[in-house]
Amino acid sequence: MIPEEVLRQAQEEMLDWHGLGVSIMELGHRGPEFQAVIEQVEADLREVMGIPSNYHVLFVAGGASHQFSMVPLNLLSEHHKDADYIETGIWSHKAVVEAKRYGNINVAGQVIVENGIHRLPRQAELKLNPKAAYLHYTPNETVDGIEFHWVPKTGDVPLVADMTSCIMSQPINVNDYQMIYAGAQKNVGQAGITIVIIREDLVKEALAITPILYTYKAYVESKSCYNTPPTYAIYISGLVLNWIKKQGGVKAIGERNHRKAKKLYDCIDQHKGFYVNKIAPDCRALLNVVFSLAREELTDEFLNQATQLGLTNLRGHRSAGGIRASIYNAMPEAGVDCLVEFMREFAKKNG
Amino acid sequence: MIPEEVLRQAQEEMLDWHGLGVSIMELGHRGPEFQAVIEQVEADLREVMGIPSNYHVLFVAGGASHQFSMVPLNLLSEHHKDADYIETGIWSHKAVVEAKRYGNINVAGQVIVENGIHRLPRQAELKLNPKAAYLHYTPNETVDGIEFHWVPKTGDVPLVADMTSCIMSQPINVNDYQMIYAGAQKNVGQAGITIVIIREDLVKEALAITPILYTYKAYVESKSCYNTPPTYAIYISGLVLNWIKKQGGVKAIGERNHRKAKKLYDCIDQHKGFYVNKIAPDCRALLNVVFSLAREELTDEFLNQATQLGLTNLRGHRSAGGIRASIYNAMPEAGVDCLVEFMREFAKKNG
Repeated sequence: MIPEEVLRQAQEEMLDWHGLGVSIMELGHRGPEFQAVIEQVEADLREVMGIPSNYHVLFVAGGASHQFSMVPLNLLSEHHKDADYIETGIWSHKAVVEAKRYGNINVAGQVIVENGIHRLPRQAELKLNPKAAYLHYTPNETVDGIEFHWVPKTGDVPLVADMTSCIMSQPINVNDYQMIYAGAQKNVGQAGITIVIIREDLVKEALAITPILYTYKAYVESKSCYNTPPTYAIYISGLVLNWIKKQGGVKAIGERNHRKAKKLYDCIDQHKGFYVNKIAPDCRALLNVVFSLAREELTDEFLNQATQLGLTNLRGHRSAGGIRASIYNAMPEAGVDCLVEFMREFAKKNG
Repeated sequence: MIPEEVLRQAQEEMLDWHGLGVSIMELGHRGPEFQAVIEQVEADLREVMGIPSNYHVLFVAGGASHQFSMVPLNLLSEHHKDADYIETGIWSHKAVVEAKRYGNINVAGQVIVENGIHRLPRQAELKLNPKAAYLHYTPNETVDGIEFHWVPKTGDVPLVADMTSCIMSQPINVNDYQMIYAGAQKNVGQAGITIVIIREDLVKEALAITPILYTYKAYVESKSCYNTPPTYAIYISGLVLNWIKKQGGVKAIGERNHRKAKKLYDCIDQHKGFYVNKIAPDCRALLNVVFSLAREELTDEFLNQATQLGLTNLRGHRSAGGIRASIYNAMPEAGVDCLVEFMREFAKKNG
């Protein structure tokens, strides 16, 4: 979902961006106009997320999956190939699989299942290697709807977070991380661009085999313009950042997201025998509320009736089944209210 | 430049794509709606370019520069690391630099300067290695405006062409190539996506060090959906392909492009002492008419006056200086007429 205001502005500016009589799609990436756009998007990102000046902000074409390779290729070195990964779902698993091709990967923690309830490992349960080149984790796993609500402590080991599905969903302290990356399509715009926030000292020579456009150095040195960047995707991210600022910033958005999530989880918990959420309360995802129906055979009926009310995209990930309510930033609170009302009605009729 | 009709359609559909009430930016890439889009774009591409069924069509996020690494990583093997490159300008040079990191690169031909006139090597002048894994060349070099108007013969060696700046500018015979790639931003849409056309037998295991999203195999096996593709860029390419079909296809577009180029080159040649083009007539680029003013000090005045007439983006590449008229498919014939008239006037006043 993209905020309607953002789409309206993109629509208005499609044929005539800022009175230039051309579309922003048609601007050369080295011209002063587009350079001003990319600089403003970076400045807005720094403001909205509170990114300190000793971090680079890079725009990398393509989705976050490229980072599954880029992180080990850039943060490992010939003499230091050990890295820690917390593996808590399909996204962090994919990151582990790719990293194993380049380094010695220690899985420092996984999801723990106790009495059918899934929870994340606690700090004391992490098997950390104090000499790891970095620790990689995925704060929010979208398929199962499980999220860290605390930041792992890693001592001197750089912490790398894949925030694709949780970036700008609530305030964070960027200083808690040495590197953050996020595909833009959940909360910062459209598919086709990934934002990389990396502390200056982590940018060094990549492994010798690294393709030039997989080295963070190339992006740092060229200000993300080594080659033509996805200019339109960067522009849309800029519009979304403006929208976030108008909403009151990440703080206000976070408060709204917590209200939205609470309404849904409360409804699930109030209908315990009917709706099932298997995630421990302190690990429940803010933006991906995943649940199933105790009577699984009602799932299709639930989805059909929801669709008729305009509540679409509720089918769970193909690997998980069940229901998943993705309530990203652009989903208005009223949409959640509508879903909760439908869920109550559906439970009453079929419970 | 993007055709105005394409921008208008994108504008109209921004908030409501095909009556679904959502933007195409918001559609999941695995849903039936987007899958129908990407299939249609592939079908249109096959139709417009006449791509045989034994070629794959892949959509790769990012610009063509990624292919400078992907080509050697995928087409070389541990036991066969020799490749030929024709190096005729800055783009093919960049491809050579990157390929040298992975293989033994033989530069099979370069631009030849005779009496100040630049020309491409002829077939007999190419120093081909009959055992090369492939020959890579760049049919059109945009900075100098120099273009192959014939296809190198390579015997059994696969021919790979970077067509970023000439794809769909005129009809080609895809069977003359084993692989074609092109960043979309010149003739097929917006920046952020590269089209790869590769004969089936060339898709094999990449070098062991290749990041998963740099292997053609991952795109073939997932139908370009290994991860979230740049959905909006693919959609825009589809609109441009429709526009090409409405124009009468690549044949009609090619005829118009030849008329456009002839008008400009004729004007330059008719004012020989005033405008200078240093490219041999049979190597002149169809879409990038590069020239300079004999009296170099008039360049800024030329550019200023042109801008006042709405003739923008005429400054030559920063490495070449002078003037460059980029007359891609979306540039209407009337725009070229306007430029030619201005050039005649300017020469008359200052000649």
